[in-house]
Amino acid sequence: MSSTQLVFADRESHRAWLAAQAALPAGFRVGTSRFEFTPFEAPKPARMTITIIALDRPTPDFAAVFTRNAFPGAPVLVGRSRLKEPALGALVINNKISNVCAPDGVADAERVCAEAARLLSLSASQVLPSSTGVIGWSLPVASMVAALPDAVGALAGGSVMPAADGIVTTDLYPKVRRAAVGAGSIVGIAKGAGMIEPNMATMLVYLLTDLAVPRAELRRMLAEAVEPTFNSISIDSDTSTSDTVALVSSGRVPCPDTAAFSRALLGVCRDLAEDVVRNGEGVHHVVRVSVSGAAGFAEARALGKAVVNAPLFKCAVAGNDPNVGRLVQAIGKHVGAHSPGTGLSGVRLTLGGIEIFADGAFRLNPEKEAALVAHMRGAELYASAPPRDGVFSPPVDFPRHERCVEIGVELGGGGAAAVVLGADLTHEYVSENADYRS
Amino acid sequence: MSSTQLVFADRESHRAWLAAQAALPAGFRVGTSRFEFTPFEAPKPARMTITIIALDRPTPDFAAVFTRNAFPGAPVLVGRSRLKEPALGALVINNKISNVCAPDGVADAERVCAEAARLLSLSASQVLPSSTGVIGWSLPVASMVAALPDAVGALAGGSVMPAADGIVTTDLYPKVRRAAVGAGSIVGIAKGAGMIEPNMATMLVYLLTDLAVPRAELRRMLAEAVEPTFNSISIDSDTSTSDTVALVSSGRVPCPDTAAFSRALLGVCRDLAEDVVRNGEGVHHVVRVSVSGAAGFAEARALGKAVVNAPLFKCAVAGNDPNVGRLVQAIGKHVGAHSPGTGLSGVRLTLGGIEIFADGAFRLNPEKEAALVAHMRGAELYASAPPRDGVFSPPVDFPRHERCVEIGVELGGGGAAAVVLGADLTHEYVSENADYRS
Repeated sequence: MSSTQLVFADRESHRAWLAAQAALPAGFRVGTSRFEFTPFEAPKPARMTITIIALDRPTPDFAAVFTRNAFPGAPVLVGRSRLKEPALGALVINNKISNVCAPDGVADAERVCAEAARLLSLSASQVLPSSTGVIGWSLPVASMVAALPDAVGALAGGSVMPAADGIVTTDLYPKVRRAAVGAGSIVGIAKGAGMIEPNMATMLVYLLTDLAVPRAELRRMLAEAVEPTFNSISIDSDTSTSDTVALVSSGRVPCPDTAAFSRALLGVCRDLAEDVVRNGEGVHHVVRVSVSGAAGFAEARALGKAVVNAPLFKCAVAGNDPNVGRLVQAIGKHVGAHSPGTGLSGVRLTLGGIEIFADGAFRLNPEKEAALVAHMRGAELYASAPPRDGVFSPPVDFPRHERCVEIGVELGGGGAAAVVLGADLTHEYVSENADYRS
Repeated sequence: MSSTQLVFADRESHRAWLAAQAALPAGFRVGTSRFEFTPFEAPKPARMTITIIALDRPTPDFAAVFTRNAFPGAPVLVGRSRLKEPALGALVINNKISNVCAPDGVADAERVCAEAARLLSLSASQVLPSSTGVIGWSLPVASMVAALPDAVGALAGGSVMPAADGIVTTDLYPKVRRAAVGAGSIVGIAKGAGMIEPNMATMLVYLLTDLAVPRAELRRMLAEAVEPTFNSISIDSDTSTSDTVALVSSGRVPCPDTAAFSRALLGVCRDLAEDVVRNGEGVHHVVRVSVSGAAGFAEARALGKAVVNAPLFKCAVAGNDPNVGRLVQAIGKHVGAHSPGTGLSGVRLTLGGIEIFADGAFRLNPEKEAALVAHMRGAELYASAPPRDGVFSPPVDFPRHERCVEIGVELGGGGAAAVVLGADLTHEYVSENADYRS
């Protein structure tokens, strides 16, 4: 949802654009270490990257929101307790193993924090841990402790790119967004929906700023910013046990305008949220559903999510098929289940700006159908390549454009609106999540 | 969920078993007519089958339940009004076009009913219509009226097989179940999740009995029977605009035991519901989730549905991958969204009867993992065949067995339980719903 739609011709131009976004705010350094280890549970070699984001000095001004999953990972449990601490000095992030419902998971997370703290002259309670990867496995704590000195030794200012690259799993590309406010900036990185091996997607987002905004303000603004952004997207309706969005201020630059900061934060969150969807597993099309005329924001967003989570509609989008019957089905399913009796005679639907449904009946003809197909083809990121060994793999590792399949749902029933981003359902999604062990 | 698990070696043995189930109760005849027509909306030839189920004389004893989708099809609107009529004389069912949100859809449905009634010496209000197929298109009423005399001419007692075959779309095989009560019987047929062309699945079920059970009793028993059966299954979480389950008694045989009839009805519904899942689009594995220790049936069923509707878990099942982290994610997602704060420390999970989670942590080891994989492979209906022209097609047209992937979710929080049937998510599902137009 950038004000400007980006178009990239190849991986190199995308990397160059990312590098230009990646200038680190003052007061932060990042470093990584990549190493091989043998998991206890599946004794064959695996690789893990530890990423450290360190502040030059601990800050009281930080905020974080975590997954609503009722089985949160150990790093989320630890992270929630960190919100009560007076200051934050560093974040330590690992991929490959998510440390969820593993025996002694909290103790393992605290052990890693303690060792990072020792190397950085902090206390363990000043370190926020995050993990993503296999659920149920235990962290290889000894290997991680052995690797931490390398990550600390690599700490450097200048660019967030090492961290943006370090936190990903099978994301096709790193995700970086920035916004400037006065002399300072907000830089965000995200790890989207990816799998190293058949496992659950996790979303991790880190927002770093040198602008001095007090803790209470940061927390309020982050809570507000996630609702229309990260809480308004869905790739496959599954909610990770590890989702984390953290916002940290080094306080190095006076903030000239709190409202401008809040707007900039919202913009960075919105861009990163769209990046996460666009690089979702197997995504060929990003679908943007704009719901208006609803009784409230929550109702509008829930209806938008019902559309982007409807499997048959998602498959139709994958096939560039304007199967508007499935769109009506999805809306009717949601309304019938959640607010039966709601009057739907005022519903008006558009696809690519073209009216397809009004006054209780479809408004279609062969000319419109051709225009709808053209709209969907124009929003396609790539078509499937012939599968190697029966496994479908995305043939691109950069986002070609920022176009979306645009759905309008006007309910005619109230003054509230919401925008939801989702995606199609493709062979690449199934291959990513089913084929590697079959 | 038969008491006996069936195993079929080939299509012929399955067809022979179906034929043995298909003896029509006294007082019914069925007939079909198949014809070619040209849809108004997409001017190339298509084929439709009209199926008539006729009673020898109109009966006051009939019941029906319909979709909860808030955009119901015209036949559902008509069907709801038929419930108020004193008697039912026939059902007229067509495939190919579902007559949903089409201009003048109700008038079209009534026109077909009127013509069938004329040929059968009934009134139109004694005919219940059903349609399945493309949403938004209009019925070819003139072609249907021209074809009705053939269907009426074909009416015959003896076997329900012509109707079981007539109502399907891309179901791989027809579905017939029966139960005997005293000297009478209940015979049910179902059309499951299928597509003729990219379009929405519809479930149609017709339950015919010669046992004399009064209308009020029939309606109460049907309402009760659908809850743990047809309302406890999900292939892809999408709710058709046309779902219909009808129960009709010819009253020819005295019912010796109403409780036995109710149990028999429940059994037929349960078997047909499982048949519908097993022949769901692209289904390789049927998943049975048994939830216990819940606060109520509704809560237990909702949690079971959250498991069978979680895309990542569905993909794991497709790959014979006991990815129990995704199972825990699905439970935690549902509880976190619908009843946050619920204590989950007493949760115990089993897969194929093997304990995999207890006391807040996974209980796994390599031996268990091997046993879990074996359980999932044992429940697999078929593996994907190499796709022709990039499109995955199921290589079987009969159900090889009735085994399920068995999931146990013990919540330890109450006395209620529910059983939910679902399925995996496969390349055949995506091909069925995305590839034909891409």
